[in-house]
Amino acid sequence: MVIVMKPSATEGQIQHIVDRLHEFGLREHISRGEERTLIGAIGDERVLRSIPLEAMPGVEKVMAVLAPYKLASREFQSEDTTINVDGVEIGGRKLVVMAGPCAVESEEQITRIAEAVKGAGALILRGGAFKPRTGPYSFQGLGDEGLEMLALAKERTGLPVITEVMSTQEVDLVAQFADIFQIGARNMQNFMLLKAVGQASKPVMLKRGMSATIEEFLLAAEYILSQGNHNVMLCERGIRTFETYTRNTLDINAVPVLKGLSHLPVIVDPSHGTGRRELVAPMSKAAIAAGADGLIIEVHHDPENSMTGDGAQSLLPEQFSELMVELQKLAEAIGRSV
Amino acid sequence: MVIVMKPSATEGQIQHIVDRLHEFGLREHISRGEERTLIGAIGDERVLRSIPLEAMPGVEKVMAVLAPYKLASREFQSEDTTINVDGVEIGGRKLVVMAGPCAVESEEQITRIAEAVKGAGALILRGGAFKPRTGPYSFQGLGDEGLEMLALAKERTGLPVITEVMSTQEVDLVAQFADIFQIGARNMQNFMLLKAVGQASKPVMLKRGMSATIEEFLLAAEYILSQGNHNVMLCERGIRTFETYTRNTLDINAVPVLKGLSHLPVIVDPSHGTGRRELVAPMSKAAIAAGADGLIIEVHHDPENSMTGDGAQSLLPEQFSELMVELQKLAEAIGRSV
Amino acid sequence: MVIVMKPSATEGQIQHIVDRLHEFGLREHISRGEERTLIGAIGDERVLRSIPLEAMPGVEKVMAVLAPYKLASREFQSEDTTINVDGVEIGGRKLVVMAGPCAVESEEQITRIAEAVKGAGALILRGGAFKPRTGPYSFQGLGDEGLEMLALAKERTGLPVITEVMSTQEVDLVAQFADIFQIGARNMQNFMLLKAVGQASKPVMLKRGMSATIEEFLLAAEYILSQGNHNVMLCERGIRTFETYTRNTLDINAVPVLKGLSHLPVIVDPSHGTGRRELVAPMSKAAIAAGADGLIIEVHHDPENSMTGDGAQSLLPEQFSELMVELQKLAEAIGRSV
Amino acid sequence: MVIVMKPSATEGQIQHIVDRLHEFGLREHISRGEERTLIGAIGDERVLRSIPLEAMPGVEKVMAVLAPYKLASREFQSEDTTINVDGVEIGGRKLVVMAGPCAVESEEQITRIAEAVKGAGALILRGGAFKPRTGPYSFQGLGDEGLEMLALAKERTGLPVITEVMSTQEVDLVAQFADIFQIGARNMQNFMLLKAVGQASKPVMLKRGMSATIEEFLLAAEYILSQGNHNVMLCERGIRTFETYTRNTLDINAVPVLKGLSHLPVIVDPSHGTGRRELVAPMSKAAIAAGADGLIIEVHHDPENSMTGDGAQSLLPEQFSELMVELQKLAEAIGRSV
Repeated sequence: MVIVMKPSATEGQIQHIVDRLHEFGLREHISRGEERTLIGAIGDERVLRSIPLEAMPGVEKVMAVLAPYKLASREFQSEDTTINVDGVEIGGRKLVVMAGPCAVESEEQITRIAEAVKGAGALILRGGAFKPRTGPYSFQGLGDEGLEMLALAKERTGLPVITEVMSTQEVDLVAQFADIFQIGARNMQNFMLLKAVGQASKPVMLKRGMSATIEEFLLAAEYILSQGNHNVMLCERGIRTFETYTRNTLDINAVPVLKGLSHLPVIVDPSHGTGRRELVAPMSKAAIAAGADGLIIEVHHDPENSMTGDGAQSLLPEQFSELMVELQKLAEAIGRSV
Repeated sequence: MVIVMKPSATEGQIQHIVDRLHEFGLREHISRGEERTLIGAIGDERVLRSIPLEAMPGVEKVMAVLAPYKLASREFQSEDTTINVDGVEIGGRKLVVMAGPCAVESEEQITRIAEAVKGAGALILRGGAFKPRTGPYSFQGLGDEGLEMLALAKERTGLPVITEVMSTQEVDLVAQFADIFQIGARNMQNFMLLKAVGQASKPVMLKRGMSATIEEFLLAAEYILSQGNHNVMLCERGIRTFETYTRNTLDINAVPVLKGLSHLPVIVDPSHGTGRRELVAPMSKAAIAAGADGLIIEVHHDPENSMTGDGAQSLLPEQFSELMVELQKLAEAIGRSV
Repeated sequence: MVIVMKPSATEGQIQHIVDRLHEFGLREHISRGEERTLIGAIGDERVLRSIPLEAMPGVEKVMAVLAPYKLASREFQSEDTTINVDGVEIGGRKLVVMAGPCAVESEEQITRIAEAVKGAGALILRGGAFKPRTGPYSFQGLGDEGLEMLALAKERTGLPVITEVMSTQEVDLVAQFADIFQIGARNMQNFMLLKAVGQASKPVMLKRGMSATIEEFLLAAEYILSQGNHNVMLCERGIRTFETYTRNTLDINAVPVLKGLSHLPVIVDPSHGTGRRELVAPMSKAAIAAGADGLIIEVHHDPENSMTGDGAQSLLPEQFSELMVELQKLAEAIGRSV
Repeated sequence: MVIVMKPSATEGQIQHIVDRLHEFGLREHISRGEERTLIGAIGDERVLRSIPLEAMPGVEKVMAVLAPYKLASREFQSEDTTINVDGVEIGGRKLVVMAGPCAVESEEQITRIAEAVKGAGALILRGGAFKPRTGPYSFQGLGDEGLEMLALAKERTGLPVITEVMSTQEVDLVAQFADIFQIGARNMQNFMLLKAVGQASKPVMLKRGMSATIEEFLLAAEYILSQGNHNVMLCERGIRTFETYTRNTLDINAVPVLKGLSHLPVIVDPSHGTGRRELVAPMSKAAIAAGADGLIIEVHHDPENSMTGDGAQSLLPEQFSELMVELQKLAEAIGRSV
């Protein structure tokens, strides 16, 4: 931490800051420039994060030197984390594609789609039983029943299952059916929920909040990691910008940035990230080319009759199959496989 | 809803859309332009929100005519909602200022600040017992104990209390101590929580999410209203933009916009909205001049030792008193009072 | 400037940075922390702005201590700048309201509106002769002819005139007719144009670019100031955010922020800033309450037939008169006048 | 255009809108819904863009059906535009990589880099003679002299040259030396400049403004096309969002979106788009995988001593060579070549 003092700061004010640093077990390093005096805090500056240094007399601004997260950082763990889900390795050389419908709608629907995506090469089945919906009048998911249908589809196809958990009260229930917990973008800073899945034993896929910076995203992952659950994967799913042509702006830059700052696997969701079916294939390829470890893609055999209104972004099974063929070629060109 | 067909759309595709509208009890109105055919849906278009019309063959885009919320709209209720909290009317001619520390830290702290803000004219006491914190290593609030301290401060001063509830599991507990539930910005789309407070009997102050549009904000209010709780107030607290000089960009425009679209009271939080003490007074005045029904302001007698790191935005009690005097003059100039 | 070295930085790399600082006449101050070594640059760090320090081996990041602008800063000049335009003082206790149509359309139109706004208390007449338009097929302004009509309206009413200049080639021409040059938001970083008006002798009102940070805005003002023209006023006119209900998000926070960082007068444009007539009055009041030195407001007696499509945000003359009465009360409440 | 009337709109107000449509040679189609009356405008709605329909009594909102640009649209021209620059085809199956330094600094520098990038497979040489700089105290480019050095480098290597033109006054001068005009992001809405290059005979690469929507970007291209210059290529170079880890957010989504909406070639600038050297390679690959027709990349043999401060994003010649090898593999995987 570097504390920049105002030009008008007095010696007493500088000493006061130094005293506070000592209180927290840090040492100071004072640099008197021509226009400003700087105080460097030596030691683990993270202890200062909760201290309102800016509120102290004579302080102009405070500049952090270290990232506020630790367990999620590449500095803490240099080698890549890989997560084993029922034999499927996430974060390794082989890319992992998760696919399935936005919401579980019926036994017939989920098993039919599960078989189709398995046939095309998907390794994990996605499908929502609890659905976060912007408006209260929309279909909110089948709940428990949906979880049971997912279990059935898993039994039939052998595909491990990822599904969303929306509140602390459902963590135990969802844990009985899911192989991976999904934390949705709107819950990325639902800290109670982060703690709850951090104490559970299943892997977690954490989606980036719509307006979350990379730092906030990694801090949210830190919440889960700090509770003891080390099997966390990060999912870029689009951020909110001024552009409205796409539903969100899928931030492909986040892929190499996250891979650089963190050891956790990075998954990309081009379906929610763009909201447009015709963009799913090009953005899937872009994600892989940029270094993503996997994709999560919506597939529906009858999008027009899907119950969530997200049909506009779902691929048909045959479109998904074609995409998988193209991704295989692309993966080989960069030394990976699908 | 107006459905714009592609130039290449066939008669069969147009007929298909019409058939779907009929299924949902709507009628169609077809307009054949020179470049596009438009299909207007006549009836309550809200039933179509969950239907992926964009996914249907031949459809270019879908344009909503009506707002997706209903109970929150001025059209549904033209007169202003006023909320009575222990004799304090929110949404009336008199402006309501809520004030207090970011977090409850001790009995001495909260009662001391409560007395100070009451003396200056605040009508409601704010103070967090459960604190949402970006990082897992920060002070997370005193929890139950904090609630009891709030109750004590209320007893001493007579000020009704507003405090945050962060998860469905704590709704009942918080209801025992709080006069108003606060839903934080990060939980604006925690739909489970919205439903839970919607079923409770206490008024709710809903904070706008950092990247929530006005429409999404009103839809979140609709979640609460639709569960039967009509005592909802909206709180603008800053949105996330590219500007980083202020912590958030307090969106004063939202005040007259919300007052126009909705009948619910509008409160402004200049403390979190700007993150800078020196901006609290000018932005408080701006909010009132723009038509806000109240303010929620952080006050701390010893910000340097506050436990949340938010001290940088807290007013000292004497600064708060001065501001209240200025607000009184301003309020009179626009025909209101503090 | 503080240069943060990577944990892996060698002594040689540190020495290399030090050598480069010496080359630029700066001294170093080295602080060896537990996790990072920091190098403070002592002297005028602005000389380092053009040096790619981040590109040097061993460097993790570079943190600026000083603002990159100088002449525009409060530190450089502590007292407020006031600008005298034909006897009208801008930046003093009295608020200055500039009003008029978006574009000059005819002699009859501009003189009629000029008389109306003068009657209501406006001190400066606005009106565009050269109009920046998003699309090439829209009305682009009357050009030279429009300037002559403005001159006529000035002659009739005695109101000084502000009008936009869009390219270096027109600076001399516009200078013959305008009392204040307006630089539009889209030209805020048209550096050639900034230099040209910086060398002219008329005052300049610089509009903030739609995606310009406060720092970039003040740097653009610095361009003009550095050429010798000290009569610069800053105009907040809305930034681009994710919110689309308003055309732009008028950033009222910018008012106290700019007044704190700079000595230049601050004007607010609620017409372009919101794009909606019904928001002009509340946002005008908010701007004044927040400390703005003036407003620039669109007024048109027949907005439906205005030629720029901006009629939707123009006040009618009688709405403008009413607003001026309300602004007078508000101004008095904060110790100013209109 | 669909005009949505307020619930309270009178028959007279509806008739008034109809009369206005007739005035502009359009026909109406009226749809009376349960909550609103809609008026569809039949004919070329672009003539209505300049009419403030929202300002008319009884109008609630106006929704555009057609895009406001025409010549730039895929609907106007379905086959891809290809641009021939001295034998190099842009927009065809072969990807075009443009490379070179940010700014021309000396004869030795530009020829050395030109030879290096040519050797690695670049087809066009980039280099700025006139440099737009955020602050007035930075190096502003060598100007005329820089143009001559570019010409020399072209003579030596045979590479066609792309360079920026910043004002209308320099269009003729730059045209003597450049094979492609570059319009910078900050000038994307410098409409005078767009018209000037629209009247010139050289191809133009138009960079997307930092806060420009896709629609505004295509409208800016339309300005150039409407003046008769059909050789326009679009360059995505990063947009401004709340994320500050990267200098801008390179919007890869824009690639397939632009290719879908327009027939113009799409180039991506990963250097300015990210501002970080380590992101240039992954984002170059992402751009190609998403369907870009080319890249423009900064290369410098001595970034530490580059004069623009942009060294932090420049590749070394050997890094560029490696990237070109990887891009070749990737291009083959998607059926193209470098």
